[in-house]
Amino acid sequence: MKKLINDPLQVANELLEGLVEAYDGKCSKIGERSIAKNDIADNKVALLVGGGAGHEPIYHGLVGTNMADGAACGDIFAAPTPDIVLEATQSVNRGNGVLYLYGNYAGDVLNFDIGGELAEEEGITVKTVLINDDVCSAPPEEREKRRGIAGLVPIVKMVGAASQKASSLDELEQAAQKIVLNTRSVGVSMSPGSIPATGKPTFEIDENLIGLGMGIHGEQGVSEIPMTSADELTPRMLELIFKDFNDDLEVSGLEEGDEIVFFVNSLGATTMMECLICLRKAKEFLADRGIKVYETMIGPLVTCQEMSGISFSITKLDDELKSYWDPPCQSVCYTKL
Amino acid sequence: MKKLINDPLQVANELLEGLVEAYDGKCSKIGERSIAKNDIADNKVALLVGGGAGHEPIYHGLVGTNMADGAACGDIFAAPTPDIVLEATQSVNRGNGVLYLYGNYAGDVLNFDIGGELAEEEGITVKTVLINDDVCSAPPEEREKRRGIAGLVPIVKMVGAASQKASSLDELEQAAQKIVLNTRSVGVSMSPGSIPATGKPTFEIDENLIGLGMGIHGEQGVSEIPMTSADELTPRMLELIFKDFNDDLEVSGLEEGDEIVFFVNSLGATTMMECLICLRKAKEFLADRGIKVYETMIGPLVTCQEMSGISFSITKLDDELKSYWDPPCQSVCYTKL
Repeated sequence: MKKLINDPLQVANELLEGLVEAYDGKCSKIGERSIAKNDIADNKVALLVGGGAGHEPIYHGLVGTNMADGAACGDIFAAPTPDIVLEATQSVNRGNGVLYLYGNYAGDVLNFDIGGELAEEEGITVKTVLINDDVCSAPPEEREKRRGIAGLVPIVKMVGAASQKASSLDELEQAAQKIVLNTRSVGVSMSPGSIPATGKPTFEIDENLIGLGMGIHGEQGVSEIPMTSADELTPRMLELIFKDFNDDLEVSGLEEGDEIVFFVNSLGATTMMECLICLRKAKEFLADRGIKVYETMIGPLVTCQEMSGISFSITKLDDELKSYWDPPCQSVCYTKL
Repeated sequence: MKKLINDPLQVANELLEGLVEAYDGKCSKIGERSIAKNDIADNKVALLVGGGAGHEPIYHGLVGTNMADGAACGDIFAAPTPDIVLEATQSVNRGNGVLYLYGNYAGDVLNFDIGGELAEEEGITVKTVLINDDVCSAPPEEREKRRGIAGLVPIVKMVGAASQKASSLDELEQAAQKIVLNTRSVGVSMSPGSIPATGKPTFEIDENLIGLGMGIHGEQGVSEIPMTSADELTPRMLELIFKDFNDDLEVSGLEEGDEIVFFVNSLGATTMMECLICLRKAKEFLADRGIKVYETMIGPLVTCQEMSGISFSITKLDDELKSYWDPPCQSVCYTKL
């Protein structure tokens, strides 16, 4: 891969500097590798997101108007260290507590937990809600093992809106748990991304296969299936999401008349053309099931360099969740009028 | 390339059906291969864009709130036929004329011109403004030979806002000409995209070279240069844009104190990470010249399948152009709060 970078070991730092520039003065770089909004209101319950770099425009692109207040940014495919989590926590804290919202990966959990302990020692109250929307990473009864994938974008959008209204950290935590519980995703991949520092592929897959249920770093999914068409693959992926909503006793099923936010994500190299062709089939499938798409999101928002593949994410709405979806938002990753 | 498609000869039709779904009821498919907004106001001076498919999310993703009223969509890398231009023109016309705004390519000009003649025969007044922002495709004194590249996104955004206020087709034409004249771009490419129907690459380039000034289909640029770093390439590209603003007698130069909209586009496979690293250097270069970036745009908005490369586009603002930039807009391609 010919990559337009400078020192391969500095990409995480340099992309973050570029990201701050993309915010046109609305965000600032904080400390070693965090960013925060410049206009966080006094007494606001703060929302902090974060994770490894290399997946741009997430996570650090999710800071903004009615979105997250700040992000703690790791190195490429590596969690932010506790020091970075602490500096980010300090910068977004307005005295009413900080909610950590990030993908369920062991490294992130470890580092955010230690960073949170350091923050607590300074008198900042911290709570954590893990994003675990990937239904192919573990069965419903082992939700604590599930990874966070592209569903994080509608989740952060909605929790960001909830954070504008929340009167306490407990209230925001409850809203975030409900939003995460009602968001589920299935991804596939056809080819790997590469590690910027080495150029090496992130995984290997046969030229004729698709990894069904693969994670955004190339983690193992449910099976490898023969390469197929958009129209054959799309229902197969959606069936897995429907089955999960209907099998999981913690959430009500996905049934005729339900309203959803529907998100088609590209992992990077998969073109918008392909995403649109899959969306076309997905909407047909959803209409056949009597599901109403309240709003559609589409684009390469959760990526892994030049990895190819897509995911579908469904957030099941009720009146409360609609009140979090409806407000406009603005960020480098996602903007809604 | 493993592409998630169905019949390779149907991709342009199927992606357009998907695109209409992405609009969540705000746009409809018209006739053979056009789309139009559902709520075009009576007596509005209409704005029609269009071009070949395969570059998603443009052009047909540029229809929306304060954006274009409709788009005439061609097949992959092929202009829309006159019949498609006519059906699109009829669907957006509200009795006050239709402005055609599209990239300067021979096939598009030929087909839009014939479509416009057919529309005129039906009593619809049509005018055309060509987008020709690519400064590497011909010298300033041969502007009529210049291609339209990624600058089309800020151009359509601003002409879309202008079309909301324009009281006549002549007024909108003048605004569009001024917006195009003040928008200039330079692109580079490191590797080709592929043609969906055949899988064949769109061009060839040596593994160690960058095509400086290449067009979005792989058209020849000003030179092939050795592969280099983001920090070395970025000023080199920006110098070309500055030189063009300053050499062209039709437009005032780009000087200290000027305000611009700055757009970093990825041609597809070039990651957001790389775009951000280039943006970081570009902002430093612009600040050194005393140029103020009024707003930054970044992302893979004008693509050519999995082609790698980036472009920079600069729109020089004055009070009139700011009044076109400031309004919010919403579309599949670009949304601004």
